Parts: sequence; C-alpha cells; structure tokens
Amino acid sequence: MITKTPKPPYYAVIFSSIRTEGNNGYSAMADLMVELAKQQDGFLGMESARNDLGITVSYWKNLEAIKIWKDHAEHKIAIEKGRSDWYKSFKTRIAKVERDYEFEK
Amino acid sequence: MITKTPKPPYYAVIFSSIRTEGNNGYSAMADLMVELAKQQDGFLGMESARNDLGITVSYWKNLEAIKIWKDHAEHKIAIEKGRSDWYKSFKTRIAKVERDYEFEK
Repeated sequence: MITKTPKPPYYAVIFSSIRTEGNNGYSAMADLMVELAKQQDGFLGMESARNDLGITVSYWKNLEAIKIWKDHAEHKIAIEKGRSDWYKSFKTRIAKVERDYEFEK
Repeated sequence: MITKTPKPPYYAVIFSSIRTEGNNGYSAMADLMVELAKQQDGFLGMESARNDLGITVSYWKNLEAIKIWKDHAEHKIAIEKGRSDWYKSFKTRIAKVERDYEFEK
C-alpha cells in the first residue's frame, strides 16, 4: 500500500481536499480516475487516505507526465465535477521529491 | 484543515505509514509531536489522514528547518519508538513544492 517509487528525483502531486455531503457519483469516478492514471506514461503510483480531510498523493516521473494527465479529457471532466459537486475545498501542490527513505519490519 | 501555506517554493515532508496493532502510547506521542512541531522555526503546517494507510504531510520553510526538527531530541525518541513499536512500515519523502493552487466554494 506504500508506493514503491524509484530513486529520486521524481514528482509528487499532493491533493488535499474536503468533500461535500453525499456521494453524488464521486466513488465511481474516483475509481475510474485511479484506473486511468495507472495507464498514463510516467505514473509511478498513488497513496490515499481520508478522514474529514482527504489526502491523495500521486507520484510521477516528471512534470510533463503530470501536465499530460492534467489535460486528459476524462480527467478534465472529473476535475470540473470536483469543483461543481464533490469538494468544498481542495489544494493541489506539485513537488519534486529530492530524497526518500523507508522502514520495514 | 487544509494548511494555508505561503507562495512556493517551500518544502513538504510526506510520511506514509502502516501501523502495528494496538495503540501502545502512539496517540499521546503523536499529539505531543504535533505540538512540538508547531513550535519549530520554519514549520508551516501539517495535514493528516489515516485509513489502513496513514499519510501525514508537514510543510516547512526550507531544508534546514526539516533537519533541525529531525534532530530534535524528543522527536528522535518518537522516531525510535515508531520503528520499535508503532509502525509495520513507513516511507518518508522530502519534496520541494514548486507550484500550488487551490479551490474553495
């Protein structure tokens, strides 16, 4: 469940969000977006957790891969529905991972 | 709940983790670490969510602030307890936020 990413540098898109009430088709679209993201060139993986605040971090090979995914036709529809229906607020941060380290028992 | 951060660049520490069973003093220490982190120079905020996977992203002014916090005496004790007691596995990624944008209804 913790994404195996290659050696840095690579990119992280940190998406923090507060949902509106109700599902309104959100879950089906979220599942579809995960499937579509996995098919993108340069996609390295994704981690997600949600309580009141949701955090999804997707990992990408480079900025170009992030831009192509941002402009993907079905993703653009999802982004639009996110603004109109699913999110009270969100913040997206695009960050270059410079170092990482891990621990496993 | 979504952290108000200054204009990029700034840094994000993305901490993804899988917990062990039971609490074993984790919650009290986690609360203490949040309080201590808030007192650090260069600390900009923190976002957290947990289901099976937990994601905590803390935001920092620069790498030096991250290093000072990593070496903080009480934080080092918490890190050690994390390895011995609280986490099955974790991954820490240090990333430079280059761009961000937000939406609010």
